[in-house]
Amino acid sequence: MDERVREHAELLVDWSARVEVGDDVVVSVAEDAHELGVAVAETLGERGATVTTLYGADEIARAHLKGAEARVEGDDTPAFDDDPAVDRALFEAADVYLRIGGGRNTTATADVSGGTRQAYAKARKGVREARMDTDWVSTVHPTRSLAQQAGMAYEEYQEFVYDAVLRDWEALADEMARMKALLDDGDEVRIVTERDAAPDTDVTMSIAGRTAVNSAASVAYDSHNLPSGEVFTAPHDTEGEAFFDVPMTIDATRVRGVHLVFEGGEVVDFAADTGEDALADVLDTDAGARRLGELGIGMNRGIDRFTDSILFDEKMGDTVHMAVGRAYDACLPEGESGNDSAVHVDMISDVSERSRMEVDGDVVQRNGTFRWEDGFEE
Amino acid sequence: MDERVREHAELLVDWSARVEVGDDVVVSVAEDAHELGVAVAETLGERGATVTTLYGADEIARAHLKGAEARVEGDDTPAFDDDPAVDRALFEAADVYLRIGGGRNTTATADVSGGTRQAYAKARKGVREARMDTDWVSTVHPTRSLAQQAGMAYEEYQEFVYDAVLRDWEALADEMARMKALLDDGDEVRIVTERDAAPDTDVTMSIAGRTAVNSAASVAYDSHNLPSGEVFTAPHDTEGEAFFDVPMTIDATRVRGVHLVFEGGEVVDFAADTGEDALADVLDTDAGARRLGELGIGMNRGIDRFTDSILFDEKMGDTVHMAVGRAYDACLPEGESGNDSAVHVDMISDVSERSRMEVDGDVVQRNGTFRWEDGFEE
Repeated sequence: MDERVREHAELLVDWSARVEVGDDVVVSVAEDAHELGVAVAETLGERGATVTTLYGADEIARAHLKGAEARVEGDDTPAFDDDPAVDRALFEAADVYLRIGGGRNTTATADVSGGTRQAYAKARKGVREARMDTDWVSTVHPTRSLAQQAGMAYEEYQEFVYDAVLRDWEALADEMARMKALLDDGDEVRIVTERDAAPDTDVTMSIAGRTAVNSAASVAYDSHNLPSGEVFTAPHDTEGEAFFDVPMTIDATRVRGVHLVFEGGEVVDFAADTGEDALADVLDTDAGARRLGELGIGMNRGIDRFTDSILFDEKMGDTVHMAVGRAYDACLPEGESGNDSAVHVDMISDVSERSRMEVDGDVVQRNGTFRWEDGFEE
Repeated sequence: MDERVREHAELLVDWSARVEVGDDVVVSVAEDAHELGVAVAETLGERGATVTTLYGADEIARAHLKGAEARVEGDDTPAFDDDPAVDRALFEAADVYLRIGGGRNTTATADVSGGTRQAYAKARKGVREARMDTDWVSTVHPTRSLAQQAGMAYEEYQEFVYDAVLRDWEALADEMARMKALLDDGDEVRIVTERDAAPDTDVTMSIAGRTAVNSAASVAYDSHNLPSGEVFTAPHDTEGEAFFDVPMTIDATRVRGVHLVFEGGEVVDFAADTGEDALADVLDTDAGARRLGELGIGMNRGIDRFTDSILFDEKMGDTVHMAVGRAYDACLPEGESGNDSAVHVDMISDVSERSRMEVDGDVVQRNGTFRWEDGFEE
């Protein structure tokens, strides 16, 4: 076995999930993610944890949903049992849930109707909540299907994934703590980018009273992705214009060149070079879908290119992202609810050139360089 | 998808497990059994059942056990948590459990020590009982690894499996009911085979007070294998000699040409052409390991060759098998316990030629032909 697979497994179990002796661990293994599943099972055995392995195969999920669709007349939406007993019981009994993505075809569920997906997701709210109550962590094994989605050769993609995952997380957590302190102490963030032949970004948002998350790829940091490497908070009262130059996929539609105009915290105008209809669908979901739920600052310099996967893209160094929709509770004062929405869609800007981020008027990052780094220009 | 895979899935769900609307179904999918897993998930969706999919990968089981072995000093046996909460909870919540075997390597766990296996099995008694309390059915998807174990080409093995599985089970159940009635009404079975250059079989056993199971591949018949196709009961007070000419594998050791001598219900002498030590280990397990727990009559004529898999071999038409060790409760009067043992090892005889089976002195099968079939000679 590739030594990097073992290192990935150990990081996942020890750094990310903080597994301890006697923990009951559920591991979901995607098609073609078998090898990382094996390494994780061995590591869990070494740590004295139990393991229950789910098969997270998109083709099985699709088959079950298509079977349910076949039960109903024409285009009717099938009904699903609320919170099936087995899934609820297994997540309620679990201490830790490790999701290993991968798969053979990232579009394996493309022909399941939106109505069916929504009905299924709605029926499983309790299962989802039980799952989120565990110490859960989501990662991926580098598969050929993900390499294809990234437009990369398989071995090239393996290098990419391990560069992103196998980091000195302790050191990165220390560095991200600086960014978190700036955001926790600050009241207002302003982001400005200047580009030729493209709409500029000049957007201001309040972060008063909000707490930033130092997302260091560990449940000990309220962080549930491996890789991670971002600092994020929940802004409000956004004003101005923002342009997102990084391509993304929304509900299987390619969206590029998104331009949003905010007034009084809401998106009042928008455009996209491609995929504008998909963007419109998102913004029309509910009232909260027109307000920002997240401002995130990507700080993982092990990620050096966009691969059409939000797990990696939003953590890339020299990027910022804003998400319309739902805010994370961890950013809000105890008992206060933030922006609420059924959606949370991240949009990313490259800030490596001709950009600056200010907190309360002080420049904290310019052209991708943070104020504590060599070469920073005030 | 091969239409036979769909038929297999529908037989498993409908005939074997009798799945109904609202049932919570756990499906375990082995490596390389993905395709049947997909067909089963679709069928369950069509029936309005839920599905939770486990990944039954031997390599993951091995990795966890090897990890546990690495925790302890030298050759010490690792300790395992008794009945892990997740596994217990999921089987307790399940109505149906479908196990789809297959895999990439039938010897994937060969280097796990016997002590570790036993400690693990012992710690999971409650999980096993919860699983047996569901409407469980075990089947296999024809994989290359199973074809290899059978010494067959892949497509040839597919034909073999579907010939065994895709039968008219209702008709076979009716035929097997005749055999069951003979055994239920009878008090004594005698089996005689005559072979050149090999020890003969002439063995008599009591079946008084015992009930035969019509194992028609359905939980409705107390039958939990697909394929099945045998009638079995729990004999006692065996006398005489029995020779088993069908090769088998005991704990990864090839055993051939087993000869057992019974007196007063117990094996008092034994021999094997190859693998005699493995046979001795079985017989020395405990007191019950020297007595018969089962007499089975194979009646599935879709199975026409031995493939070194007990799921198929013991159901083959024109064979009988006897198992030393544990008896099945279904064969015993309510509240009475039969032969008890930690083992249950089936041994098979070809009875297609120069053989007869008598019940209370009446010949019921001669040279493989039953008394109700054309060509039967009294």
